[in-house]
Amino acid sequence: MRLATIRTAAGTRAVRVDERTATETGDADLRALLSRPDWATHAAAAAGPSHPVEGLDYAPLVPAPEKIVCVGLNYRDHVQEMGHDLPSYPTLFAKYPPALIGAYDEIELPAISDAVDYEAELVVVIGESVRDADDAQAAAAIAGYSVLNDVSMRDFQNRTSQFLQGKTFEHATPLGPVLVTPDELPDGGWAITSVLDGETMQSSTTDQLVFGAVELVKYISAILTLTPGDVIATGTPGGVGHARRPPRYLTDGAEIVAAVAGIGECRNVCRKKP
Amino acid sequence: MRLATIRTAAGTRAVRVDERTATETGDADLRALLSRPDWATHAAAAAGPSHPVEGLDYAPLVPAPEKIVCVGLNYRDHVQEMGHDLPSYPTLFAKYPPALIGAYDEIELPAISDAVDYEAELVVVIGESVRDADDAQAAAAIAGYSVLNDVSMRDFQNRTSQFLQGKTFEHATPLGPVLVTPDELPDGGWAITSVLDGETMQSSTTDQLVFGAVELVKYISAILTLTPGDVIATGTPGGVGHARRPPRYLTDGAEIVAAVAGIGECRNVCRKKP
Repeated sequence: MRLATIRTAAGTRAVRVDERTATETGDADLRALLSRPDWATHAAAAAGPSHPVEGLDYAPLVPAPEKIVCVGLNYRDHVQEMGHDLPSYPTLFAKYPPALIGAYDEIELPAISDAVDYEAELVVVIGESVRDADDAQAAAAIAGYSVLNDVSMRDFQNRTSQFLQGKTFEHATPLGPVLVTPDELPDGGWAITSVLDGETMQSSTTDQLVFGAVELVKYISAILTLTPGDVIATGTPGGVGHARRPPRYLTDGAEIVAAVAGIGECRNVCRKKP
Repeated sequence: MRLATIRTAAGTRAVRVDERTATETGDADLRALLSRPDWATHAAAAAGPSHPVEGLDYAPLVPAPEKIVCVGLNYRDHVQEMGHDLPSYPTLFAKYPPALIGAYDEIELPAISDAVDYEAELVVVIGESVRDADDAQAAAAIAGYSVLNDVSMRDFQNRTSQFLQGKTFEHATPLGPVLVTPDELPDGGWAITSVLDGETMQSSTTDQLVFGAVELVKYISAILTLTPGDVIATGTPGGVGHARRPPRYLTDGAEIVAAVAGIGECRNVCRKKP
């Protein structure tokens, strides 16, 4: 099953996305839908107003999550090409909800940064509250997977020891377009790529993750309760623009596509803020 | 004027706190109150149900802010005693809302950390939406000040380069009890202290801040919009337990008091989670 949050004339709506039509579930957004204990059967049975899939206006998959947890240094190939040892613990940092945009919205390039970079990431979306999870509870708490481009203002990210200020610029982090439930996905590694103006910049598979989805849910849930609609962005593979020589940043008018095979892609044009 | 969020049998309520009584404003919590454009006159005129101040059950001052922005390395005396140069930019990191507790609630010491530390901090609470603020706009966006104890699991904080996981344990960060509007406060430095089981551990004044309240609002609002109820924890002075030799951590049954003169104090007993 595929689920999304779309914008309609009446506001945002959670929808089930089938081959040709998207059907409203009766919830304002995906977080509200996932907060129903019976969200899966509710969404599967939904028969509300429907919309052609062609031309849907996607909001951020979860417009206002309680938590957006991002993971750094989490692809083996990337860590090793950087000459680091594999980490013992996941590196976690945050974004605030106003950073998020829809999967096809424009990325806002702030006037005050000249070093805006892309990072294609697999996302885990939480579907039930979980604390101190074991493996089975962590797996059961995963509603599904999506895609995020962890757009990063490298100059701000590196101003201090803490990444946050370079990671949470407003209207710059695409999330979506859809959540795909685990039963729709093959086992094993999924191809993850980013393509900038037609040129492939990142290309790896999710079996390169140091800490996988279940491990991340377990680890984070030992710190605090994960709740429906929470988003975990699992990190990015090698090939980011900041690590290239010369560096390659996002500029006005550029199109960046972050994709995970079988799940979806965020396709965004960049717009410099005046 | 002093404002707070209290717990009642019917749920949380925003209140104006006068000398002897707290009067409900008709809002579910302080964030809802501050989201009214006329919050100051509305709160001043409020005449809802009232409660004796003695024995109020304080919720976190803002139970669910959109953003909790924390500042590191922001007291001159502390930076200099550590042998660092004064920073050029504020170091920012986040907490998630479930970290917050009321000003007199128990601090939950997690079973998985043996290095839980205190950090008394002055808090800025935002009272109107602001982006790319100048000095006057930043000052006008400050609804008032409060107190936070940035309780930190040092072992988790130092597991990776990013502080987040040591800063956001559930039910461990006291915030409150009240917001005090700027007109009630004297100019200049306010005494800030923490006292552990009767022993003063931190003692400084807020004129030691490297980046003051207005500068922080300006800086953060260049990154994203600050909105009513957002919380900025401005950093802590020297004297934390982790920097002592031997280190001094919070243990089961300990009482820690974080206070800012003229504003209020968080007074919390620590309870080890089984």
